[in-house]
Amino acid sequence: MKLPGQEEFEAPSASENVPAGQLDSGLGTGPSPDGPLDTGSRELEVPKDPLLFIQLNELLGWPQALEWRETGRWVLFEEKLEVGAGRWSAPHVPTLALPTLQKLRSLLSEGLILLDCPAQSLLELIEQVTGVESLSPELKGQLQALLLQKPQHHIQNTGTKPWRGSPHSRKASHDEEALLKEQHQNPLRQKLPPGAEAGAVLAGELGFLAQPLGAFVRLRDPVVLGPLTEVPLPCRFFCLLLGPPVLGRSFHELGRAAAVLLSDLQFQWSARRASNLHDLLAALDAFLEEVTVLPPGRWDPTARIPPPKCLPSQHKRPISQLQEIRDPSVPPGAAAENRHGHGPHSPNLELQRTGRLFGGLVQDVRRKASWYPSDFLDALHLQCVSAVLYIYLATVTNAITFGGLLGDATDGAQGVLESFLGTAVAGAAFCLMAGQPLTILSSTGPVLVFEHLLFSFSRDYSLDYLPFRLWVGIWVATFCLVLVATEASVLVRYFTRFTEESFCALISLIFIYDAVGKMLNLAYTYPIQRPGPALAESTVYGCLCEFPGPGENESQWTKTRSKDTGDILSMDLGLINASLLPPPECAQRGGHPRGPGCHMVPDITFFSLLLFLTSFLFAMALKHIKTSRFFPSVVRKVLGDFSSVLAILLGCGLDAFLGLATPKLVVPREFKPTLSGRSWLVSPFRANPWWLSVAAALPALLLSILIFMDQQITAVILNRAEYRLQKGAGFHLDLFCVAVLMLFTSALGLPWYVSATVISLAHMDSLRRESKACAPGESPRFLGIREQRLTGLVVFILTGVSIFLAPVLKFIPMPVLYGIFLYMGVAALSSIQFMKRLQLLLMPAKHQPDLLLLRHVPLSRVHLFTAIQLACLGLLWTIKSTPAAIIFPLMLLGLVGVRKALEWIFSPQELLWLDELMPEEERSIPEKGLEPEHSFSGSDSEDSDLIYQPKAPEINISVN
Amino acid sequence: MKLPGQEEFEAPSASENVPAGQLDSGLGTGPSPDGPLDTGSRELEVPKDPLLFIQLNELLGWPQALEWRETGRWVLFEEKLEVGAGRWSAPHVPTLALPTLQKLRSLLSEGLILLDCPAQSLLELIEQVTGVESLSPELKGQLQALLLQKPQHHIQNTGTKPWRGSPHSRKASHDEEALLKEQHQNPLRQKLPPGAEAGAVLAGELGFLAQPLGAFVRLRDPVVLGPLTEVPLPCRFFCLLLGPPVLGRSFHELGRAAAVLLSDLQFQWSARRASNLHDLLAALDAFLEEVTVLPPGRWDPTARIPPPKCLPSQHKRPISQLQEIRDPSVPPGAAAENRHGHGPHSPNLELQRTGRLFGGLVQDVRRKASWYPSDFLDALHLQCVSAVLYIYLATVTNAITFGGLLGDATDGAQGVLESFLGTAVAGAAFCLMAGQPLTILSSTGPVLVFEHLLFSFSRDYSLDYLPFRLWVGIWVATFCLVLVATEASVLVRYFTRFTEESFCALISLIFIYDAVGKMLNLAYTYPIQRPGPALAESTVYGCLCEFPGPGENESQWTKTRSKDTGDILSMDLGLINASLLPPPECAQRGGHPRGPGCHMVPDITFFSLLLFLTSFLFAMALKHIKTSRFFPSVVRKVLGDFSSVLAILLGCGLDAFLGLATPKLVVPREFKPTLSGRSWLVSPFRANPWWLSVAAALPALLLSILIFMDQQITAVILNRAEYRLQKGAGFHLDLFCVAVLMLFTSALGLPWYVSATVISLAHMDSLRRESKACAPGESPRFLGIREQRLTGLVVFILTGVSIFLAPVLKFIPMPVLYGIFLYMGVAALSSIQFMKRLQLLLMPAKHQPDLLLLRHVPLSRVHLFTAIQLACLGLLWTIKSTPAAIIFPLMLLGLVGVRKALEWIFSPQELLWLDELMPEEERSIPEKGLEPEHSFSGSDSEDSDLIYQPKAPEINISVN
Repeated sequence: MKLPGQEEFEAPSASENVPAGQLDSGLGTGPSPDGPLDTGSRELEVPKDPLLFIQLNELLGWPQALEWRETGRWVLFEEKLEVGAGRWSAPHVPTLALPTLQKLRSLLSEGLILLDCPAQSLLELIEQVTGVESLSPELKGQLQALLLQKPQHHIQNTGTKPWRGSPHSRKASHDEEALLKEQHQNPLRQKLPPGAEAGAVLAGELGFLAQPLGAFVRLRDPVVLGPLTEVPLPCRFFCLLLGPPVLGRSFHELGRAAAVLLSDLQFQWSARRASNLHDLLAALDAFLEEVTVLPPGRWDPTARIPPPKCLPSQHKRPISQLQEIRDPSVPPGAAAENRHGHGPHSPNLELQRTGRLFGGLVQDVRRKASWYPSDFLDALHLQCVSAVLYIYLATVTNAITFGGLLGDATDGAQGVLESFLGTAVAGAAFCLMAGQPLTILSSTGPVLVFEHLLFSFSRDYSLDYLPFRLWVGIWVATFCLVLVATEASVLVRYFTRFTEESFCALISLIFIYDAVGKMLNLAYTYPIQRPGPALAESTVYGCLCEFPGPGENESQWTKTRSKDTGDILSMDLGLINASLLPPPECAQRGGHPRGPGCHMVPDITFFSLLLFLTSFLFAMALKHIKTSRFFPSVVRKVLGDFSSVLAILLGCGLDAFLGLATPKLVVPREFKPTLSGRSWLVSPFRANPWWLSVAAALPALLLSILIFMDQQITAVILNRAEYRLQKGAGFHLDLFCVAVLMLFTSALGLPWYVSATVISLAHMDSLRRESKACAPGESPRFLGIREQRLTGLVVFILTGVSIFLAPVLKFIPMPVLYGIFLYMGVAALSSIQFMKRLQLLLMPAKHQPDLLLLRHVPLSRVHLFTAIQLACLGLLWTIKSTPAAIIFPLMLLGLVGVRKALEWIFSPQELLWLDELMPEEERSIPEKGLEPEHSFSGSDSEDSDLIYQPKAPEINISVN
Repeated sequence: MKLPGQEEFEAPSASENVPAGQLDSGLGTGPSPDGPLDTGSRELEVPKDPLLFIQLNELLGWPQALEWRETGRWVLFEEKLEVGAGRWSAPHVPTLALPTLQKLRSLLSEGLILLDCPAQSLLELIEQVTGVESLSPELKGQLQALLLQKPQHHIQNTGTKPWRGSPHSRKASHDEEALLKEQHQNPLRQKLPPGAEAGAVLAGELGFLAQPLGAFVRLRDPVVLGPLTEVPLPCRFFCLLLGPPVLGRSFHELGRAAAVLLSDLQFQWSARRASNLHDLLAALDAFLEEVTVLPPGRWDPTARIPPPKCLPSQHKRPISQLQEIRDPSVPPGAAAENRHGHGPHSPNLELQRTGRLFGGLVQDVRRKASWYPSDFLDALHLQCVSAVLYIYLATVTNAITFGGLLGDATDGAQGVLESFLGTAVAGAAFCLMAGQPLTILSSTGPVLVFEHLLFSFSRDYSLDYLPFRLWVGIWVATFCLVLVATEASVLVRYFTRFTEESFCALISLIFIYDAVGKMLNLAYTYPIQRPGPALAESTVYGCLCEFPGPGENESQWTKTRSKDTGDILSMDLGLINASLLPPPECAQRGGHPRGPGCHMVPDITFFSLLLFLTSFLFAMALKHIKTSRFFPSVVRKVLGDFSSVLAILLGCGLDAFLGLATPKLVVPREFKPTLSGRSWLVSPFRANPWWLSVAAALPALLLSILIFMDQQITAVILNRAEYRLQKGAGFHLDLFCVAVLMLFTSALGLPWYVSATVISLAHMDSLRRESKACAPGESPRFLGIREQRLTGLVVFILTGVSIFLAPVLKFIPMPVLYGIFLYMGVAALSSIQFMKRLQLLLMPAKHQPDLLLLRHVPLSRVHLFTAIQLACLGLLWTIKSTPAAIIFPLMLLGLVGVRKALEWIFSPQELLWLDELMPEEERSIPEKGLEPEHSFSGSDSEDSDLIYQPKAPEINISVN
């Protein structure tokens, strides 16, 4: 019994034979103990069998116009020719009727079996196949001529044009060269890995045959059998199934059965090694032992089952490695993949406490140093270019939005320029030095909140903010260095999904709250004019432009209250020289805008709201296009990846089109600090008393906790086992870098930076390596991440250069940025499991999705867990909103404690499914024993399999 | 070979035995020609076997605490107990391993078979089962005690509380009474139809057994076997599978296999009639013959397959009727269901030309007269109340929106009051008299367009509109009566899906275009103020309220052009007595608003746009909730059905909250015609010349075509075979009613009415009758529509009463109504196949959904068809927008011609899949022969099945 998550990857082990093999089989001979099946289990490490492409050529047109036609093909899944539509069906899981398989068995057992046939061409092969039979010479001639007929292939061009149906053109000219050219240009050929072999199944009904004719040939040396297969691959297997016409096209089904059988990896393995008919039949029986049976009447046998997303349970089959082995693109280091094999919190090597001061840091530096050259060489790939563009845009968006927010939060003490500069310098430095260079540094929500609190505090007590902040930074750096020295980062093992997701939810909520809050604030800046007496005070109209006039006294506004008490707005005007100019123009012309309506800019609020909603909804829609059926995948990917950039562009376009005076991004025109009158270097004291440098240690302590949590939770997420990182993490080194950069940014008055979860995950996502040559219908396999330092470095250099983008940036309306913020918050929130559990609260039990979680934990317990998490989040939010907000980092740390306390309420089994286990619990499980519960459950055989499905990565957001 | 669509319903026929039965079977004895299987085919009409509920009780807790526990249950699909979570899994298609079935076979063949066992209680049964075996007395005693142990059931309460897990409470007290009460309160019991029987499978591993023990019992008289099954049903079958413990819980799987076998209808049929072991094994073999096999490795055998939406291919199985028969709620008239059995355009009886004047009308009246009493009696059902509420709200929404649009289109000649009055009177009259009383009359888009054209024409030529319109109406009624007399309605057989969908698309596009156009027009009514010198002329600010002042001359506005030529707005003001009041208040106080900014109402345009988008998006979101997983189905249905009403309420709420002067619905305060100064009855001449009454015949001819098309296309859609209407259609009678109402509405100056597709379909949808007692996982079967006249009648009476709703209606902002219009257009557009084909244009071939259409027609042909349809639509739209718009009804008729011309481009087979066949084509197909293409195709066996899946109803919109 394995724990869920303990083995996230396919871990083939010969001991996991299906128990079905131990049952008496009422059918056939069954696999003998020393038959090919067992040989398979023994020789597990040896074989590297090539991939097999199987094609079914069917004899159609009986009796008038006999011709061979390719009607099906298989690599792993079935593709069927839709004759009417002239296209290949989508790849699907093949289904067979049981009697067909049995008929195939009897046909093979009575037919001709040629193993290691030495034929070197199709002609030789056909002579061999037809020669041995007791056929009359005339029949033999007819048959040979028929078998030599060139089959019609349906070659599908997946290039720019969707389809190029060829059957009709083919019929006209059997031009050998054209056929060969077509064969070679077949796009399927590019998909199949080099070294792939072919298997051909020929089936059909033939009127002049009295007896069914079955032949199974294994060629000793695979050769390309002319135009037999649509892809010119050397042919290893050849299967002929002919017979007299019977009702129901049973030979079509027989051919399909043979092809499906041949496409089974385990049957292939056995058939390649079979030495006689007995072995072959045993392999067929072994196949039958393992088939899944759907009862009739409750399943439409003609329905096409789409390929499962993750290919299942090969690891449970005796010769599971074949699956893995046949892909030559698996890197040689793949054996090391299970390095992290101890559950989701796997980076155990990095997180062993050395017990020496800075021991972890030294270890990190040593480990990463050995990878340093490869960190640049590995970046030499085209994928990195697109990753740079994508992440650059995301980083710039982030820098702009956070810069704007920071400007608001600190009342202009910092701004967009600082944000750009800081991001560029800190990010680049981190990419060069850090333990995990895939991390993207950024301003983050919690740090922004803290900065705002710090600013409010220093404003309330009339402190000079930047010097005070410098001291906080110095102390934080010191504390962080202490944490590095004491190897405190090993504590991240206590960060479970509960902590991560609560933290992530909090960040997302801050994003959403801020975005909506800023928008609503606009309604105060640009009030809406409402009619009606009840709202009279805000509905003033008009504004006069009053000119001093040549040589005249300034005219007086006489506000006289009219007799009607409700009419507080009517005024007697004694103006001599005034006009109805808009206030800005009035001022420009030397006049003074006068009147209660002068500060009113109409339409802005609602138009801003429209911009806000438009950019949010547009970004959301573009993100969904990524998973839709529309457009080629390249277009989809571009639209999805650049959703926020496109949404910003749309917003700016709309704004420019209407030309309203919406609030725009404030960008500096010169390269100097946003706060006027300060030099780049922050002086350590200025107006502040000396003891403040000591007192700053108190907020610094809280900020240190925050920085530690924010940095390490992101690091834990990035270094998850499911990303299969080869070069390891560097928790201590990363924290060290953050501490040093803290010092640097504080000294220059730049924002503070830690790892940003969302954008770093997007970075990793853009660097995914996936297997290319994959069978139709099979999803590409994830091979790992292109781990290097160059993409990040280039991104931040580009960000630095973008400081000079000010003339462009000033056209971006703030509501558009708020919309993007809302989008980022919503996207991040929607990807966490916590939200899925929250949704369960609203779903009636019978409509709930079939989550593994729900199969194993009672619904009431799931809801209880969700409720506790929700309460924690509510508490955190409340604290953040009260004057006690400054202790909020401490509460964040409290999340770990709450999670620990949950052990008293929930059993380890429940926590295993709801969350993850903390280090102690992992130890406790074998003692308490998982076995009794499971042997008692009715779900043994089913779950053991599902456990191997990797849990979905908790936070896999592709934002921006 | 059957044509697709020819048989939309399950048409069981004994001749459709699976060909697999003719193959040699390598397994078992195979069904002998006169075995139970064939008997089944012969006795097809006789049996009415009860439904079987199967429960698997498993022996768990070995060796310490043996207990029986219900771990699975079956009716049609499998529900599995999630032991850990304490809940039933969602119903799913059961999957088995083939060896398990074979082991079951051998266990049964060696075990005890008791057919027609006379046992009257569980005790007797257990004595019989254990008595015959060669067991030692001690073992027998142990076994009997074990078998008499009460099993633990997991009874699920689907009521208000989601789950009431009972296993633990059960363990504590084996209280017989409580158990019985629980058994009887089991919600599953309500779901099962009366007369259902139970089958119990007991399986488990027992240490003291040396040999496997298998027993299969059929009770002669089914009795409730105490607490054996969770539902207290009389037990018919009892299956015991015990054996020594082996690895892998194989007896659990054996028990499942037995239960799945027993849940198969055909096996049940055979097992009920089996007379010996041989018959039983033959039935098992017959089951094996029909199973679907999934190859290993490409399908996760532990994945749970959700139940298919339409239960497939029972009709292909020998004893297919069982499926149909077991539901006693099928109405006795079900045999008449195939009345419409000749393709989608089935109302052949109604559409036979009689050859006599008014022959069709007389026939319609005669046919409908016989149903007249039942048309009221059939309405006595609670469902009709909710239908009335739903359709009432939809009708009122429609009346409001169309009334508003009509007011715009005719410049106030008609309005909301006329719309309400006309809808109520015409609708009620139609419901009382019409041939198809499920139809809801309404103003429709095309008629509205025509009315607008007519109004423009009479305005341009200074005609008196209403009298002119009266003559048009008189002529239209005359023409329609001629159409009725000549039985022209039989031509609707030429309306194929092509015509219907093009027409529907046009209506939807008119909706969408109008909605968006009206919104954009607001920007002219309430211009947006833009800053900047370039836009100076529209950016004037302010407006002064000038009072005459006591005894003073009216002050003069002296507009002096300043020296700066660009400054055209600066004015010298010489005001004495003025104020900055908003214009309405100014006027109220006796002043005169003066100034260029007086006609400017800020914020309205953008706020209207927000209201428009909000109501549209909210209605769309609510519609999607209907198919989401959230909320109980009742809540979902209410939210979905009342989406537009709720969206209107939301819009009104928002508007009221902000209190802006958005344009509101203009409703009359008194019951008098909207056009002031006219009496209700329109005088036939007034200012118009006499010859206009003759000339009106020309537009009337065009309008007649439009009315005929609009009315009959809707009628064809409503009377589709897939709705299984029992009382038949009345095409001639319907048209007659429309003609009479035309006369009536024209005389009173009310809007013209024809059948409205969308709302009528919603009406039918709300009256669907569905089978109630259905197995878990099975979708309820559609039984027909509650055909009656009462719901429509009540709806229109309520609409009439709503005329007095004016004080409420005037709060509805127009942008909200435009939003609902947009929603109706989009909803109607998204439901037609034409849109699906349009979407295909944007999808790469490999991402396209697996539509039947695409399996049979080459993609290029599909695209060509779509392009032609698109071109037709474009042409129609162009004509509608040019001065030639008045001939647009003729072009609509041209659609039928275009469709006819398509026969030259497309083969009948292609048209069959892309569209439907016209009457002549239906005849032509057998000649041209479908066989060759199909026997040549590789899709024979698969398609023959898929053909029986009814095509989705072309337009099944649930709007409002």
